[in-house]
Amino acid sequence: MKQSMLFTKTKFEAPKDEVSKNAQLLIRAGFVHKEMAGVYVYLPLGLRVLKNLTELIRKEMNDLGGQEILLSSLQNRVSWEKTGRWSDQVVDNWFKTKLKNGSEVGLATTHEEPLTELLLDHINSYRDLPVYIYQFQNKFRNEERAKSGILRGREFLMKDLYSFSESEAEHNKFYEKAIDVYHNIFSKVGIGDRTYLTFSDGGSFSDFSHEFQMITDAGEDTIYIDKEKKIAVNEEVLNDDVLSSLDLSRENLVEEKAVEVGNIFTLGNKFSSTLGLSFSAKTGEKNDVFMGCYGIGISRLMGSIVEALSDEKGLVWPMSIAPFSVHILQVGLNESVSQTSTDIYNTLVQEGVDVLLDDRQINAGEKFADSDLIGVPVQMIISEKNISSGEVELKERATGKVVMVDEAQVLDTVLRMIKE
Amino acid sequence: MKQSMLFTKTKFEAPKDEVSKNAQLLIRAGFVHKEMAGVYVYLPLGLRVLKNLTELIRKEMNDLGGQEILLSSLQNRVSWEKTGRWSDQVVDNWFKTKLKNGSEVGLATTHEEPLTELLLDHINSYRDLPVYIYQFQNKFRNEERAKSGILRGREFLMKDLYSFSESEAEHNKFYEKAIDVYHNIFSKVGIGDRTYLTFSDGGSFSDFSHEFQMITDAGEDTIYIDKEKKIAVNEEVLNDDVLSSLDLSRENLVEEKAVEVGNIFTLGNKFSSTLGLSFSAKTGEKNDVFMGCYGIGISRLMGSIVEALSDEKGLVWPMSIAPFSVHILQVGLNESVSQTSTDIYNTLVQEGVDVLLDDRQINAGEKFADSDLIGVPVQMIISEKNISSGEVELKERATGKVVMVDEAQVLDTVLRMIKE
Repeated sequence: MKQSMLFTKTKFEAPKDEVSKNAQLLIRAGFVHKEMAGVYVYLPLGLRVLKNLTELIRKEMNDLGGQEILLSSLQNRVSWEKTGRWSDQVVDNWFKTKLKNGSEVGLATTHEEPLTELLLDHINSYRDLPVYIYQFQNKFRNEERAKSGILRGREFLMKDLYSFSESEAEHNKFYEKAIDVYHNIFSKVGIGDRTYLTFSDGGSFSDFSHEFQMITDAGEDTIYIDKEKKIAVNEEVLNDDVLSSLDLSRENLVEEKAVEVGNIFTLGNKFSSTLGLSFSAKTGEKNDVFMGCYGIGISRLMGSIVEALSDEKGLVWPMSIAPFSVHILQVGLNESVSQTSTDIYNTLVQEGVDVLLDDRQINAGEKFADSDLIGVPVQMIISEKNISSGEVELKERATGKVVMVDEAQVLDTVLRMIKE
Repeated sequence: MKQSMLFTKTKFEAPKDEVSKNAQLLIRAGFVHKEMAGVYVYLPLGLRVLKNLTELIRKEMNDLGGQEILLSSLQNRVSWEKTGRWSDQVVDNWFKTKLKNGSEVGLATTHEEPLTELLLDHINSYRDLPVYIYQFQNKFRNEERAKSGILRGREFLMKDLYSFSESEAEHNKFYEKAIDVYHNIFSKVGIGDRTYLTFSDGGSFSDFSHEFQMITDAGEDTIYIDKEKKIAVNEEVLNDDVLSSLDLSRENLVEEKAVEVGNIFTLGNKFSSTLGLSFSAKTGEKNDVFMGCYGIGISRLMGSIVEALSDEKGLVWPMSIAPFSVHILQVGLNESVSQTSTDIYNTLVQEGVDVLLDDRQINAGEKFADSDLIGVPVQMIISEKNISSGEVELKERATGKVVMVDEAQVLDTVLRMIKE
């Protein structure tokens, strides 16, 4: 894409009422717009990241055997009353609204109830199990305060997968696989080294749930990490019983602020027994389906990556989810600069590389500053001076490392940098 | 995908309370699930169609120069008060809800207000224009009655594009291009021959708006078509003045029931003047931006295609948006049938063809009936009898046309059928 055509503009300062680092940077760079506290609009650059993240996670969910669906936001009160989760005393962040006939409906905070009821039509026998179903869908949560940018939204995009198994044993096998896949996802998006499987409260369902907590000062949680074992314990379950059950000792734990970038829950038969989702087992008896749920807040993950990887100059995107792979900065108005930039741009686009070409008629300093703010992983500087020596300059946004590359080698070098 | 892994099951009958043909068929075939009146869940097969439709339209919007964003569902009351559209007396299908602090927010029925206000940050000069911005986003509309399946939802997916131009003349050029693109889209999804550009009420904005109306008994609108000129007039503006301004005469018009599958509006400066979206013109003066909007209800379009193309046996999908291109029906439990089916399945998948393989251990009659109900464009029947003669049977779902093809020719034949 040519930057002269991009309708968004960068800003020198973030809005004064925006206190979170992720939203400040994303607004300044033109990735998001704040509609109201906790509600953000995704502009072209931001939507590209959101889509890349979605696609990366979709592939992993498909590899896990997941089938994608799209549930609704408007929710029937009756289902939620059956499980006792309709009341604002039980779930305190409902948004509710009314149909014309006066009956109340909710805006989905989560989707266990509707999905479990939907499956009554489709699961009868052990032959229909296991089933893994996921979606990317907006959740609405009426947060009392929403000051963390896209880390905690009132409306936000979430991937939620639900597993339906014959037995706890079958469930556990999938649950372990899901843990591996989650680690894999966080590695691929550049935060693997600071994200820990964290034992957390299992609610009424099981001993523990598992969070994936990423270390950051912007986090609202406190976790205690055993860096050698690469696991952590959430403050809320930190006690001697838990530590001994996990074979951890206090002196090896490091306290950190962290944000939950994913969480997985064993639900057992809480929902299936209440909502009547049973199946005929091989033995002929009727059993309740054994369930689990597996969430990743997509917009929260995007915000977490910003909190973790950005620097004083702006955003720094990992190649896997970057809005563009290469940012060509055409420096100077000289005809040969413009020609070379366009030629290289066309060559890269033809090879399927996502390129942003800064062809705007503004000074070089502004282009460099904007490029650092936007955070595309590879910056390619094409100036008169470089061209005269037959070279272009490639700069890694994350490290600042610069290499001069012969024009003829540009494509190969870029393709190699993308793969790395 | 192997059908034995698909979690949805077909149904012999639709729910009794479902009166619309599109929802009846889509529910029976396992494409959608009814959450409540006017609110549908998209199951794996249905979501595939919805995504194909989205991707087809996205490409057209990008070709038009559109930039994709994602606006929010939760809407700030203040913006809508400025344009006088917050009141339930003016917009009678708002869903409204409340933040914890008691302030009311709306669920977006449309997005002119928030997008116009967003652009205050990004449009200053004629150099920033024109801009074309679009999204695929849920709309929420509190319909009094919702009995038309996915033709009229309380929550539904919509593509809406908004144009921002310097002048009416510049706007008109784009508007004409948009009409061509819309015709193109409806042709590509198989309803071009029954969809008419229809002159309709322009509201306070301009003489006319333009609807794209598809003829169907399920439609809620009545239009009057001049089949030679290939345009129509909506009942609501049918009068002598309008007819003469369009150079139409009553005796050439045919009355038809129709459903609106797209609509485009010249908005002029109604929103820009009220919300302050102006720009410095070349001449130095401040002008209001000239706007237009261009909608296609994606889920409504999917429902309209069902109404138009399905037959007494079930759904009939055009290749361009079909959930799969080929449905392999493995008939009989014979080892060689299973082997041949799997070989052909693997070959096609490797070539990038979307294939559904019915490998379920049920009888042939059920497979044929399910396949007709699901409506994949090419059915491939692999039976013991066929194999013994080295052939497979290819059947076009839409026409029932059957060809016997030598096993060695299957790939070429299928690829040709997909391209046609």
